[in-house]
Amino acid sequence: MTDQETANKVVRLGRVAPTIHDVARAAGVSISTCSKALNNKGKLKIETRERVRNAATQLGFRPNELAQSLLRGRSFTVGLLISDIYPRVMPLLAGIEDTLAAEHISVFLCNAHDDRTRERQHLNALLAKQVDGIIVAGRRVDLRAPVDLGHSQTPLVYVYSPIDDPDALCLMPNESQGARLAIEHLCALGRRRFAHISGPRDRAAIQIREATMRQVLDEQGYDLPAQRILHGSLDEPFGYAAANILLDRDPDIDAISCGSDVLARGVLDALRERGVCVPDDVGVVGYHNMEPIATAARPPLTSVDANLYELGHRAAHDLLAMINGQPRAGVHLLPFRLVVRQSCGAR
Amino acid sequence: MTDQETANKVVRLGRVAPTIHDVARAAGVSISTCSKALNNKGKLKIETRERVRNAATQLGFRPNELAQSLLRGRSFTVGLLISDIYPRVMPLLAGIEDTLAAEHISVFLCNAHDDRTRERQHLNALLAKQVDGIIVAGRRVDLRAPVDLGHSQTPLVYVYSPIDDPDALCLMPNESQGARLAIEHLCALGRRRFAHISGPRDRAAIQIREATMRQVLDEQGYDLPAQRILHGSLDEPFGYAAANILLDRDPDIDAISCGSDVLARGVLDALRERGVCVPDDVGVVGYHNMEPIATAARPPLTSVDANLYELGHRAAHDLLAMINGQPRAGVHLLPFRLVVRQSCGAR
Repeated sequence: MTDQETANKVVRLGRVAPTIHDVARAAGVSISTCSKALNNKGKLKIETRERVRNAATQLGFRPNELAQSLLRGRSFTVGLLISDIYPRVMPLLAGIEDTLAAEHISVFLCNAHDDRTRERQHLNALLAKQVDGIIVAGRRVDLRAPVDLGHSQTPLVYVYSPIDDPDALCLMPNESQGARLAIEHLCALGRRRFAHISGPRDRAAIQIREATMRQVLDEQGYDLPAQRILHGSLDEPFGYAAANILLDRDPDIDAISCGSDVLARGVLDALRERGVCVPDDVGVVGYHNMEPIATAARPPLTSVDANLYELGHRAAHDLLAMINGQPRAGVHLLPFRLVVRQSCGAR
Repeated sequence: MTDQETANKVVRLGRVAPTIHDVARAAGVSISTCSKALNNKGKLKIETRERVRNAATQLGFRPNELAQSLLRGRSFTVGLLISDIYPRVMPLLAGIEDTLAAEHISVFLCNAHDDRTRERQHLNALLAKQVDGIIVAGRRVDLRAPVDLGHSQTPLVYVYSPIDDPDALCLMPNESQGARLAIEHLCALGRRRFAHISGPRDRAAIQIREATMRQVLDEQGYDLPAQRILHGSLDEPFGYAAANILLDRDPDIDAISCGSDVLARGVLDALRERGVCVPDDVGVVGYHNMEPIATAARPPLTSVDANLYELGHRAAHDLLAMINGQPRAGVHLLPFRLVVRQSCGAR
């Protein structure tokens, strides 16, 4: 059916919500007068405008935004396609939703469950609903396949989810700069014998962080022998076990860089139970600054923060620019910040 | 402007996305033939249907769902108004989104930031977008004010967010049953001298849990003297401090019921450092079963789980029923489940 046919049919259908016809009838004016009064256009007596507005309020009349969207060719909606729902995506969600809500744009939340089929279904639904733009949000630095919008020109932003396409806009946390912040901070505090405990080596972020750590220590003239590095999982039990292994191998370690804050919590527990004092004997830094975990650590954990709320804000901001016809492209790396608490030994 | 005027204007406007006119032109058929082919209606040659479908695929033609929604009087969208974005709301979000996505309904995520003004703005936007229904999701057992939909008949479900309106549908976790699960479990394991460490006494959930604990212990014939109860905040540092205070007062305590899992983590640390063995000397149970926190505890923490994913699924399921004309009302309490790990001493 054509839009014309659709449209003709609309007014033939009974509608639950009050229409402008009901308002005009209630106010005792013509449709066009009613329309002028509601849209604040044309020449009308003040009393007439008032009468129409009161009738609209009493009936609970709302202009049908679907009809307006159809007319304007803009839906004032944006699709947010996330790889999954997990704690670390929350500040990203909040930054995106806050920024778009401030522009009166509503956000469709679509959870792909890391599944290409579900992602495809969500994308089809978003395109069918004529969203003004789409944000694809992940949680990895690893490359992902570009999403396929077919012939659609719908603006698209990738955040925390890089793809191999020079025409696409990708906003990423700068893992290398984040790792550098943590290591340079420990070096500045006089740490020399570094150890590193992190997650699976097949992840890009894990590789970047270790490579950066090696580079910074090399610049500073300190070595990082293989026996002071352990890769496993980013969880607390591995941190606890790995810290014990590393200190058995080398009791003189004076700094441990951890791949996550929960992993660092396991490290702190192991050190405490060995009678190793943090930060006096060993300085410890976490990664990602998960507030409740880092602040409740004993001692409170120094960590680096990817500023995910700001990343979400930037993604929404750039998408709005694209929707308004300003092209955006390329990979943009956004900075981490260092959050200094007590575990590093800073005064 | 009337829907009729709007609709008439639609086809006069240039559209970026290909329309049925473009498909008909490309396939060399009339609009009505094209419409029949795409909607799989009427009598057509197979070759014609094929030719039209191929043209549609090549052009990337998508039926305009805004137009269809206008026609059907249904938008196949639902508004999800959450009080804020925080870790414990995630399974609720996931349960709601999964259930609605399976029915091809897209979800608007609206974060009210616990602010009535923002809530009002989100509600107006949702109603203007003609959502088929609205879910209001909170995180408290405390009463909240009903949301005002004006004259709108849009179906509404409150989840984890009770209001004082017998005609409304409220789905809540059964805090009393959850607390009972934990305490009866400890009693069954032979615990007798109970202590309770929990959050701010002005919260309904905190009051319900303490009252239930008193009731269960009374039924079992055990007392709960005031000096074995401490209320503060639901965080880890308070759990650590409170456990030390309570064991200084009464070293014979053999069970500690905690108001949250992170609080319980603080309790476990305090007990370990005092040389008190968990579970042999003291059994500990948490609340809410935050997986990574409970499983990484030493020993792994027994906790009660509010089944928030299922709560979200049920909310979406009931909203769909209401959208389909089946009324729902009243307060419904959904069960917790006990997740037994090692901190309670169960074999």
